[in-house]
Amino acid sequence: MLVLITYDVNTQDAQGGKRLRKVAKACVNYGQRVQNSVFECLLSPAELCIVKNQLLNIMDNQKDSLRIYNLGNNYKTRIEHYGTKQTYSPEDPMIY
Amino acid sequence: MLVLITYDVNTQDAQGGKRLRKVAKACVNYGQRVQNSVFECLLSPAELCIVKNQLLNIMDNQKDSLRIYNLGNNYKTRIEHYGTKQTYSPEDPMIY
Repeated sequence: MLVLITYDVNTQDAQGGKRLRKVAKACVNYGQRVQNSVFECLLSPAELCIVKNQLLNIMDNQKDSLRIYNLGNNYKTRIEHYGTKQTYSPEDPMIY
Repeated sequence: MLVLITYDVNTQDAQGGKRLRKVAKACVNYGQRVQNSVFECLLSPAELCIVKNQLLNIMDNQKDSLRIYNLGNNYKTRIEHYGTKQTYSPEDPMIY
């Protein structure tokens, strides 16, 4: 299933900058950065639990916001993209 | 249907700041700002066309990125939120 992870990390203090980098780093291990704080991740339910726990351990519940959207398996028709930052389809073969 | 609108506007030049404000203003007319550049909008297909055209006319295709995710009608089970920025459910009655 394709899961969309979006987050807002409060970077007003030095800790915030650190949390922001850690959150992005955790997401990069599981999917594609399609916008600054938006990731698309092809995950099993178990993987979703793992990445969610990692993110919840990094973020500050009082200052940051994390939203997770489950687009299911039939996601290709649900997504439209315009402008820069071309993305790849997570299920297509990566040919170098 | 619930539509998620996410965007990245390049604000390196003065025009970018203006575009960013205009994009946010256009989205606010149609839905709820759940994160800095993430909006949840309850839209009919016709309304989606209208807001999409407005946004495409504002943004710079070479510099900005717009992503639209259609979460359908059965969206409540698809969304998880953690942390700050509490949101309201778009279909619940607004009681003041």
